[in-house]
Amino acid sequence: MHRDSVDLNSDIGEGFGVWSIGDGVDEAIMPQISSANIAAGFHAGDPCTIARTVAMAREFGVAIGVHPGYRDLVGFGRRAIHSSSEELVNDVIYQCGALREFARLHGLDLSHVKLHGALYMHAAVDEAFATGLVRAVRLLDAGLPIYCMADSVIERVARTAGHPVVREFYADRDYDNSGSIVFSRRVRPLEPREIAQKVLRACIEGRVVTTDGRDIAIEFESVCVHSDTPHAVLILTAVREILAQHGIAIQRAVPRMN
Amino acid sequence: MHRDSVDLNSDIGEGFGVWSIGDGVDEAIMPQISSANIAAGFHAGDPCTIARTVAMAREFGVAIGVHPGYRDLVGFGRRAIHSSSEELVNDVIYQCGALREFARLHGLDLSHVKLHGALYMHAAVDEAFATGLVRAVRLLDAGLPIYCMADSVIERVARTAGHPVVREFYADRDYDNSGSIVFSRRVRPLEPREIAQKVLRACIEGRVVTTDGRDIAIEFESVCVHSDTPHAVLILTAVREILAQHGIAIQRAVPRMN
Amino acid sequence: MHRDSVDLNSDIGEGFGVWSIGDGVDEAIMPQISSANIAAGFHAGDPCTIARTVAMAREFGVAIGVHPGYRDLVGFGRRAIHSSSEELVNDVIYQCGALREFARLHGLDLSHVKLHGALYMHAAVDEAFATGLVRAVRLLDAGLPIYCMADSVIERVARTAGHPVVREFYADRDYDNSGSIVFSRRVRPLEPREIAQKVLRACIEGRVVTTDGRDIAIEFESVCVHSDTPHAVLILTAVREILAQHGIAIQRAVPRMN
Amino acid sequence: MHRDSVDLNSDIGEGFGVWSIGDGVDEAIMPQISSANIAAGFHAGDPCTIARTVAMAREFGVAIGVHPGYRDLVGFGRRAIHSSSEELVNDVIYQCGALREFARLHGLDLSHVKLHGALYMHAAVDEAFATGLVRAVRLLDAGLPIYCMADSVIERVARTAGHPVVREFYADRDYDNSGSIVFSRRVRPLEPREIAQKVLRACIEGRVVTTDGRDIAIEFESVCVHSDTPHAVLILTAVREILAQHGIAIQRAVPRMN
Repeated sequence: MHRDSVDLNSDIGEGFGVWSIGDGVDEAIMPQISSANIAAGFHAGDPCTIARTVAMAREFGVAIGVHPGYRDLVGFGRRAIHSSSEELVNDVIYQCGALREFARLHGLDLSHVKLHGALYMHAAVDEAFATGLVRAVRLLDAGLPIYCMADSVIERVARTAGHPVVREFYADRDYDNSGSIVFSRRVRPLEPREIAQKVLRACIEGRVVTTDGRDIAIEFESVCVHSDTPHAVLILTAVREILAQHGIAIQRAVPRMN
Repeated sequence: MHRDSVDLNSDIGEGFGVWSIGDGVDEAIMPQISSANIAAGFHAGDPCTIARTVAMAREFGVAIGVHPGYRDLVGFGRRAIHSSSEELVNDVIYQCGALREFARLHGLDLSHVKLHGALYMHAAVDEAFATGLVRAVRLLDAGLPIYCMADSVIERVARTAGHPVVREFYADRDYDNSGSIVFSRRVRPLEPREIAQKVLRACIEGRVVTTDGRDIAIEFESVCVHSDTPHAVLILTAVREILAQHGIAIQRAVPRMN
Repeated sequence: MHRDSVDLNSDIGEGFGVWSIGDGVDEAIMPQISSANIAAGFHAGDPCTIARTVAMAREFGVAIGVHPGYRDLVGFGRRAIHSSSEELVNDVIYQCGALREFARLHGLDLSHVKLHGALYMHAAVDEAFATGLVRAVRLLDAGLPIYCMADSVIERVARTAGHPVVREFYADRDYDNSGSIVFSRRVRPLEPREIAQKVLRACIEGRVVTTDGRDIAIEFESVCVHSDTPHAVLILTAVREILAQHGIAIQRAVPRMN
Repeated sequence: MHRDSVDLNSDIGEGFGVWSIGDGVDEAIMPQISSANIAAGFHAGDPCTIARTVAMAREFGVAIGVHPGYRDLVGFGRRAIHSSSEELVNDVIYQCGALREFARLHGLDLSHVKLHGALYMHAAVDEAFATGLVRAVRLLDAGLPIYCMADSVIERVARTAGHPVVREFYADRDYDNSGSIVFSRRVRPLEPREIAQKVLRACIEGRVVTTDGRDIAIEFESVCVHSDTPHAVLILTAVREILAQHGIAIQRAVPRMN
């Protein structure tokens, strides 16, 4: 499965008004990635922040994705809200449109959809929401890829519908034996070089070592580095360097179709 | 200036979550108008309300306009917020996109932009905001008409830029000698038949009697009836009836170009 | 268990800005009840609405309770939000204080706490939240009664702590065999006279007929009529009338201590 | 006018959810000041942040003041909102109560009110708002000092009403010849030692040099250091050191009565 290129995506524009998040290093992250997941107002991302972020993505030729979340500024979209699927799908459509309009201002279009936080996890397990969402996204743009976890409910629903998906490899998260991400906080800090090695091996061999020490197969079209992970910029730099040394280019995802 | 047709527009979808406004009679208003100004989330209009309202507009063949306001739910966008023009323009772009996406879901597109409440008045007098807004709207869609008051700053700015405008006649507001709307509360309630006569005369003769008793000329491409005016439905019915009797059809505005 | 008096409580002040709820009949409801549960800003209830509602409660000598909900205007606090107990307790403290300050303006104090919607239900089943909440309320005022369902988790936790509770009888809801409220929508509309009879019997005999036709015992210190139930005013009138005919006065709850 | 002590106040707790402001150095600032102005939810300050900040103030024996702002998270309360005085007074009451409740949780009470940002400036110039606010604060607590600028409208209104005020000296702002603060951005960065000297001279001689080079008299009961000024912690340290060297203690303000 050795590849020539891989997509590198990061969540970005996640401030609100005067407030920023992470180390507020969007300017340092943008030049390093190929796909930006831009907050669209519900968990973060006021219109001025969106405008700035989209302009910056354009400047660096980075793909403009929308990153819709639950309507939850105070909880940063990390709290699930018990809503009907219809409500949540409408929330996503609303945020897609808001983001798309700023792309349109520059003569560009949305390149992908990646849900944020608890909403991303909800789509990974909830059949009704995943189904409603895929149906809506297909009506909006049948070629608009949805970023997701491999083997999640939304991946299955999208692929059954013939909708393009981009599966992610989480550079700064651990995996358990099932191939699921482990969200518990690490004991030890992340070492950029170590992460870069992990990403390289995933790209070249398609394998990752789990928290239990097993070696499992993993499939993906994009590598995600979270912008609020400490040292995100150093991690990105290390990842890019090692991939470059092995002839793997960073470029927008080639979505997976059925 | 006798005309064959006139546009009839109304603000609509101005509830939020469980709350509705006016008599909550959107269902009764929609079939009567040709252009709907749909709230887009900042002063009113959550995604579910937007979805319902856009679907209803489509059902009745009503033009889908966006009705962006200040970010002010509690004040219903009736309070001016001292912001930079850039912020306000970004707020409008955001709301345009959100609304446009729901139209897109039905294979439709935005037909016009009409600002709401205090933001509408701000564009009528503020050169910097009007200029920034027209520039942004032109980038988004150089053919997207902006609804406005005749002789307002934004009308002038738009026309100078060669951008289409639709000037409004306010059926349920009084005019003073300058041709400006009088926003003070009336002493007497609005009588539908009387309003209908006023609209008819404006359509046929292009004239209206001011609060001071003078008879002035007035130009417009659309008649606005506010959906939260008491008896809005009766007013709309009376207006439609009298116009029909005089051979004036209700249909989408033909915007005014330079 | 025949009683001389019973408390009659209703949720009130549940508008937000220009929007009101139910039939917007707070003015008609307030004179009929002994205890008002006043929305405090998170699911409804902006400061001006609170100010008006508290002034009205004072005018009619109605007890001023706080009605805290989830931070969820668009969902009216009817959607559970997955939050830590600490967050939710802080949300309640915040809302208690806001409401208490308006009472203070009139030289009055809070008389009780009644959670709203999904937060009320959460406290009824979640041990950690109920425990944290009772602890906080005791620190704020060890004599401040908490309204709740009989046999709910929060009732047990409060009573174990020696904290006063007021158990409610839901006039406009059905009960199942376990004594739990049935929240499913009724097929038939509520008939005020019928409801009044149900309340009377509950007050005199301490019994209610369940949806399955069984006759069960029920204990309570207060009768709740929801202000957004259709015909809430007629229901309240009917309840008051029948209770008066049987010599049962409407007055503030005598909380139940351990 | 040589004094034995002076109050040192700072705005604090101005994060929201995951977001913090300034360098997020509340922990470093709190031990250095005698009075904390704690954000209360409208421009910043969610309930969990408030809870933490109040607990920290208590730990260091710092006076707990409320810092109410406009309802404007995205603009951080720096944008004036055209509202009626009644609305704004109710907004302040609401925020006072919310903050007071967290103090109450620790058996403490509010020590002062200091408005935030654009609302602070509004009270400095608007007679109707200042009057309504002083009236409300007097009803809530006739002894609760209001922090303000010397010679502002609210200072005059409060003193006329016999209400205690605390006038501020702005360590990190420049003054013009009228004694007003100059809010334009400085060309040169703030040098902690220089600021400390300026504060010392104001405390000992009651004089400050204006931007135009004149030497004017200045009266105040408290020194304000903004927590979002770069190097706020260094500035506070320098100010404390120099005052200590000259025998001036940092302690809560003695309000000025008529």
